[in-house]
Amino acid sequence: MKKILIAILAIPIISVAQNQDAVFIKKMSDDILTNGKAYDWLHHLTKKIGNRVSGSSAFDKATDWGKVTMQEAGADNVIMQECKVPHWVRGNNDEVKIISIDNKKQSHVLNALALGNSIGSSIEANVIAIKSFDELDKRKDEIKGKIVFFNYAFNQTYVETFQAYGEAGKYRYSGPSKAAQYGAVGCLVRSLSGSTDNFPHTGMMKYNDSFPKIPAAALGLQDANKLWDMCTKNLVKVSIKTHGKFLPDVTAYNVIGELKGISAAIKYITIGGHLDSWDVGEGANDDGAGVVQTMEVLRVFKAMNYKPKNTIRFVLFANEENGLNGGRKYAEQALAKNEEHLFALETDGGGFTPRGFSLKLNEEQLKKIQSWIDLLQPYGTHKLEAGGGGADIGPLNEKLHTPIAELLPDSQRYFDIHHTNNDVFENVNKRELLLGAVNMTALIYLIDKYGL
Amino acid sequence: MKKILIAILAIPIISVAQNQDAVFIKKMSDDILTNGKAYDWLHHLTKKIGNRVSGSSAFDKATDWGKVTMQEAGADNVIMQECKVPHWVRGNNDEVKIISIDNKKQSHVLNALALGNSIGSSIEANVIAIKSFDELDKRKDEIKGKIVFFNYAFNQTYVETFQAYGEAGKYRYSGPSKAAQYGAVGCLVRSLSGSTDNFPHTGMMKYNDSFPKIPAAALGLQDANKLWDMCTKNLVKVSIKTHGKFLPDVTAYNVIGELKGISAAIKYITIGGHLDSWDVGEGANDDGAGVVQTMEVLRVFKAMNYKPKNTIRFVLFANEENGLNGGRKYAEQALAKNEEHLFALETDGGGFTPRGFSLKLNEEQLKKIQSWIDLLQPYGTHKLEAGGGGADIGPLNEKLHTPIAELLPDSQRYFDIHHTNNDVFENVNKRELLLGAVNMTALIYLIDKYGL
Repeated sequence: MKKILIAILAIPIISVAQNQDAVFIKKMSDDILTNGKAYDWLHHLTKKIGNRVSGSSAFDKATDWGKVTMQEAGADNVIMQECKVPHWVRGNNDEVKIISIDNKKQSHVLNALALGNSIGSSIEANVIAIKSFDELDKRKDEIKGKIVFFNYAFNQTYVETFQAYGEAGKYRYSGPSKAAQYGAVGCLVRSLSGSTDNFPHTGMMKYNDSFPKIPAAALGLQDANKLWDMCTKNLVKVSIKTHGKFLPDVTAYNVIGELKGISAAIKYITIGGHLDSWDVGEGANDDGAGVVQTMEVLRVFKAMNYKPKNTIRFVLFANEENGLNGGRKYAEQALAKNEEHLFALETDGGGFTPRGFSLKLNEEQLKKIQSWIDLLQPYGTHKLEAGGGGADIGPLNEKLHTPIAELLPDSQRYFDIHHTNNDVFENVNKRELLLGAVNMTALIYLIDKYGL
Repeated sequence: MKKILIAILAIPIISVAQNQDAVFIKKMSDDILTNGKAYDWLHHLTKKIGNRVSGSSAFDKATDWGKVTMQEAGADNVIMQECKVPHWVRGNNDEVKIISIDNKKQSHVLNALALGNSIGSSIEANVIAIKSFDELDKRKDEIKGKIVFFNYAFNQTYVETFQAYGEAGKYRYSGPSKAAQYGAVGCLVRSLSGSTDNFPHTGMMKYNDSFPKIPAAALGLQDANKLWDMCTKNLVKVSIKTHGKFLPDVTAYNVIGELKGISAAIKYITIGGHLDSWDVGEGANDDGAGVVQTMEVLRVFKAMNYKPKNTIRFVLFANEENGLNGGRKYAEQALAKNEEHLFALETDGGGFTPRGFSLKLNEEQLKKIQSWIDLLQPYGTHKLEAGGGGADIGPLNEKLHTPIAELLPDSQRYFDIHHTNNDVFENVNKRELLLGAVNMTALIYLIDKYGL
C-alpha cells in the first residue's frame, strides 16, 4: 500500500521535473536555432584559416582564434594547455602517374594524395593489385620491387558507414608496412570511402619500424577502379612522387574554456572536438563542425544564464589526426591534478543531422541516460546506444575511467568528404550543424543536473 | 492456463517469422545498397531530361522514359493512364529590379522567380513591406497602386522544416490575391525557405477570381532581407516583369507499373512519386528522387523474385505541382473500377536520409505497423507516426478511404533547394536516396505479407 502511494505521488513529481526540463531544453534549442553562432564561426575557421594540420602555422592561427572565440562564447576563463605535437608536412604536390601499360609509354595522372606521415620519395615500379592482407600473404613471393595497390572496397551493405570505415581502415593505416615487409617499393590504397566521386582521401598511416619506409598514397575511387581493371589485364607501371617529411615536434595547445560549477565539491564535465585537421580542404566536417558545436553549447548556457552544478570544460583538442597528443595531455593533467571527471562528450562525426549518442558507460548509467529519451527525441535523437566515445576523450576513459560518449550524426555523407579537398564549408548545412549542438546541449544539461 | 500456454507457444512462432522477415529485408537492403539503379536513373532524368513542368515537352520525354524504365525495373505490365493537365509557361526570364530609392534612380536586380501560375505583366510601383495577413488587413488603406512585399520568415525554431513551410505557405499560395483585394498592382513574396543562400523559390500560387490578377514573384532570402531593410527606411520603387501564361490543357499520363499479386481476390497496394516538377533546376529532390525510389522498390522485388499477395502498383504521377490532376485521375479510375485498395505510400520529401513514415490510418492499423519497428529500425526508421500521406494519394484516401502514408526523409535540407535552380542531381546523395528505397521496400513487403 505504501509502495503504491509513493508511486502515485512520484508520478506528478517526475512529470513536473521532466516538464520543466522539456521547457528549458526547448528554450535553449530555440536560441541555438535562431541566434546560434556555430555556422558563422565555422565560416571563419574554414575560409579565413583553412586546413590546419598539427604543427602548421595555420594550426597556430586556429589556436589563437579558438581562444578569442571561446571568450566570445562566454567562458569564465580560458586555459591554454601545452603539449608537443608532431609536424608532418606534405611538401610539394604528390603525383601518381601511370607511365606504361604493357611496356607502352603512357602519361596518365591519377587523382591521389600521399597518406599522412608518408615519407617523400620518387619511385617507378610495376603494380600488383591486391584485395586483402590475406591475398598479400598468399602472394608474398610476387611483391618484391613492386608497388602494392590495396583495393579493398567499402562494404556498401552496412547501413552505418563507420562500420565500413572500421573494416577497411587497416589498409590505409598499416598497408604500406605490410607491403614493405615483402619487399614492395611503394604502396597505393583505395581511398576509405564509398562515394561516387574521384576525390582521394588522405589520413593517418603508421610505419612499422621493422620494415623499410615506402611512399604511400590514396587513390580516388574512380581511378582506383580504373587501375584495378587495368591491372587485371595488363602490366601497369606507375610512378609515385611524394615529398612528405617530419619537421621537429612543435609546442601546441589544447584550448580549454571553463564554465564554473556552483557545487562545493568540484567535478568536471568535458565537451570537445579537435581543432587540427588534415592538410587538405578546410577541415569543415572533420572537425571544424565539432569545434564550433562545442563552443555553441557554451554560448547557449551563458545566454540562458545557466549555472551548472559541475564545472563544464569546452575543449578544442590539439592533435587528433596524427598523434592524439592533445587528448593524452588532457587526461594526464586530469590524473596528475586528481580531478574528478563525471562525463566527457566528443563531437567528431561531421556536422550532419543528429541521430543520438554512442555511450561507453556502465549499464546503470546507460539506463539512466536512456530514461531521458523523451526529452531528447524532439531534436532528432533516437539512438542512445552502448558503444564508444571519441578518440580525444579515450585517454580520459582509460586513465580515469570517465564515462564517455560521442554525438552520432547521420553517417551517410561523412566518408564522401572525410580527409579530402572536398571537406569544405559548403558541405555543412547550418541547421544540421546547429541541431547537433542542440542535442549535445540537452544531454550535458541533464547529466549536469541529475548526475550519472 | 490456456492463455498462458498460447502466449508461450506464440513467442517462438512470432520470433521465427520476424527472423525470416528480418533476413529477407536484409537481403533486399543489401541488393539495393549494392546493385540499386535509382541513382543512375536519377542521373538520366535530371541531366538528360531536366526539369519537366506539366504540359511541357520535357514532361512528355520524362513520361516516355518512365515507361521504358518501369519495364527495365521489371513491371509485369505498364499502364499509361491518360489525364488532362494544365500547361503554364514562364515565358522569358522574369525580372524584379529596384528602380529608385527615395526617388533617386537605381538599377539593382533582385534574385527572383515568378510564382507558378503567375500572369505575365510589366509594372512599376512603390513597395509596401508587410509581415503578415493581419498587418495587410490593418494597413489596407495604404495598399492601392503598390507592390505588396510579404516578408513572412520561416520559423527556425521548428525542428521539422515542413512545419515552417506549412505555416508560411499561405503567403505564396494566396498572398497575391489578398494583396490585389486592396488594390495592389504586384506582389513579392519572401521565398519559402530557411536557407542561407539567395536562390528564389517558385511554387504554386492560386488567384482568387474575385480580384484582379497581378504579377507575383518570390525573392531569394538575402534579397528579401535587403529589400525589407530598405523599405523600413526608404521609399523603394520596384519594377516587376513577368511573362507567364497558360496554354491550352495538355493530355498527359500517369505511368503505372504493375507487379501482379498471386491472391485470387485482387487488392492493390500503391507506391508513387510525381514525375512533373517546377520549371527550374532539375527537379532532382522534388520529386525525381521519389520517382526513382518507387521504381527501385519494383526492381528489388523482381530481383528477389518476390511474388506479392496483392498487386503492387508503382505510379509516376503526372501533375503534383500545379493541379494534382494525376492523383485525382488515379483515384477516380480506382473508384470507377471498384478496385479494393489496401494501402498507398508516397515519396515526395526529397532523397534525404530516411527517418520513418507519417501514416494516415486508424489506430489499430497504426499499432500494427508500429509493431514492426524492430524490422525497420536497422535501416533508419524511428518514426512511425500518425499524420498525413502524400498529395497524389490524398484523393485515394478521400474517395476510397485507403490508408495512406509518406516516407519521412530528414527535412533539414529540403527547403534549401525546393523549387529552385539548385534542386539538381548533385544535391542528392546516393546512399541516402537508396536507404529511402530500402525503408519503403521493407514497409511495403510487410504490409503485403501481413495486411493492415
